[in-house]
Amino acid sequence: MTITVVGTVAFDAIQTPFGKVDRCLGGSATYFSVAASFFSRVNLVAVVGEDFTDDDASIFAGRNINLDGLQRVAGAKSFFWSGEYGFDLNVAKTLDTQLNVFAGFKPRLNDEQRRANILFLANAEPKLQMETLEQAAPKLVALDTMNLWIATAREDLTRIFRRVDLVIINDAEVRQYTNQSNVIKGARQILDLGVKTLVIKRGEYGVLMMTDERVFAAPAYPLEQVFDPTGAGDTFAGGFLGYLASRPAADDRDLRRAIIFGSTLASFTVEKFSLDRLRQITLDEVYARYREFKALTHFEDFEV
Amino acid sequence: MTITVVGTVAFDAIQTPFGKVDRCLGGSATYFSVAASFFSRVNLVAVVGEDFTDDDASIFAGRNINLDGLQRVAGAKSFFWSGEYGFDLNVAKTLDTQLNVFAGFKPRLNDEQRRANILFLANAEPKLQMETLEQAAPKLVALDTMNLWIATAREDLTRIFRRVDLVIINDAEVRQYTNQSNVIKGARQILDLGVKTLVIKRGEYGVLMMTDERVFAAPAYPLEQVFDPTGAGDTFAGGFLGYLASRPAADDRDLRRAIIFGSTLASFTVEKFSLDRLRQITLDEVYARYREFKALTHFEDFEV
Repeated sequence: MTITVVGTVAFDAIQTPFGKVDRCLGGSATYFSVAASFFSRVNLVAVVGEDFTDDDASIFAGRNINLDGLQRVAGAKSFFWSGEYGFDLNVAKTLDTQLNVFAGFKPRLNDEQRRANILFLANAEPKLQMETLEQAAPKLVALDTMNLWIATAREDLTRIFRRVDLVIINDAEVRQYTNQSNVIKGARQILDLGVKTLVIKRGEYGVLMMTDERVFAAPAYPLEQVFDPTGAGDTFAGGFLGYLASRPAADDRDLRRAIIFGSTLASFTVEKFSLDRLRQITLDEVYARYREFKALTHFEDFEV
Repeated sequence: MTITVVGTVAFDAIQTPFGKVDRCLGGSATYFSVAASFFSRVNLVAVVGEDFTDDDASIFAGRNINLDGLQRVAGAKSFFWSGEYGFDLNVAKTLDTQLNVFAGFKPRLNDEQRRANILFLANAEPKLQMETLEQAAPKLVALDTMNLWIATAREDLTRIFRRVDLVIINDAEVRQYTNQSNVIKGARQILDLGVKTLVIKRGEYGVLMMTDERVFAAPAYPLEQVFDPTGAGDTFAGGFLGYLASRPAADDRDLRRAIIFGSTLASFTVEKFSLDRLRQITLDEVYARYREFKALTHFEDFEV
């Protein structure tokens, strides 16, 4: 089974209480593809400038990632994001965003990209997400978004919420979009738009997955050292949808397992800057941490 | 098996976004005793004024609660707390605290109270907690505290941390006491003082239980309407320690079940003001919600 992801391949400058890098590999589609490719074939659709070197591209080498959709534009610079994290690491403060080559990005999906079982629309302006969605008819469409679009493109966002199967969003965004202090109540409003599955990211507290009938709660893996949270959300989405795409039934049991694989991969990402940790890990390490998640959450029926 | 709890039986005035009550039953030992008595016999040790009527005392009637330790002082008023919750309901703002009869409270445990298997020292000045502890030699001593004592009685608090088996605390208090942004790292510091089990309350995000070797994470029960969070922590402690006291081994499996029972009972408490919901529920309703917790968190081993 395959996934197509449309998003950014980018450079980041990051400052955390533990260190600083002026230029490192980043971008939603980068984290997503590497994570998802542990389980499924990924068609990556993104655009980079000529500053994106073969050395940078080596992150994708030897993985199950099809790079036909990675355009390189001569004379242009790649998308650049600069951000800073404070004491609690929960919220990134954006210092600078330079769209560069992404400003003129009009994704055109080829046949293979269109035919993927899952389409993931990484965070982008909702209009761009809609233009991409209209080119494909996958079994499942999933979407990520951010506070900026809730504030500036609310109607477009609502329009695309009505068209997708699965939304990945954080709890502050649920509150912001629905104006509800209670996240569960807010989530119901989003499900009422026709979204079948809502996945709510809660940072260090884990993930809540809701459908009309069910709720599943998973904690985050307890780490004593979170080094850099950048890319955790996109890594989560990649692990989650990558595992899901590999499962023929993709039923509730698979969705729950997929949440744990997403959480597992995200827990590795935050251990180092950029993709430095994610690129090192093996599938066996992923499996081992999945089992630790089981030990972390398991309890038995009561005895009286 | 029995538990002795030393804490407050009090009156509260509470304002939430959903309503306001000028005087309702409250107090740490009240919530704790009612919750714990679902599973174990409770010796309640507290003091009230003559404003505490037989009608107020009916909360304890027909439950497995020994009231020998509930002193009533003539001509005095009961402990009074007034608080307000904002939009997100996570943090209470204290508007007024009147110690009243609690100001002169010097708990003197009788033989039965001393001989209980578990002693729970509800939130109070650490010196008072220490004086109580020195009268007893239970199998397990558990303690709750608050931000006020971390700020004003830090050394006394550290002294009593070194003497107890189990500490129940919230995540902001772990950060405040240890000056660590990472809660897991902060928790290790508290465990290093000799605390065997640390239970970290995370409000709407649930509970984390840590020992030197293990971590257990439980979500909160997802409620669409949290009406009044007052007493949730003491209800949790009551359900948790009440179930634990009923289990002869009190091993890791029982500790995990106890966390779920505590979370279950707390989820009822917040559904109405004061103990209005907690006093209504039956053990069958508690069991049913425990099973819902299982459905909420359960996932299977992966298939590849």
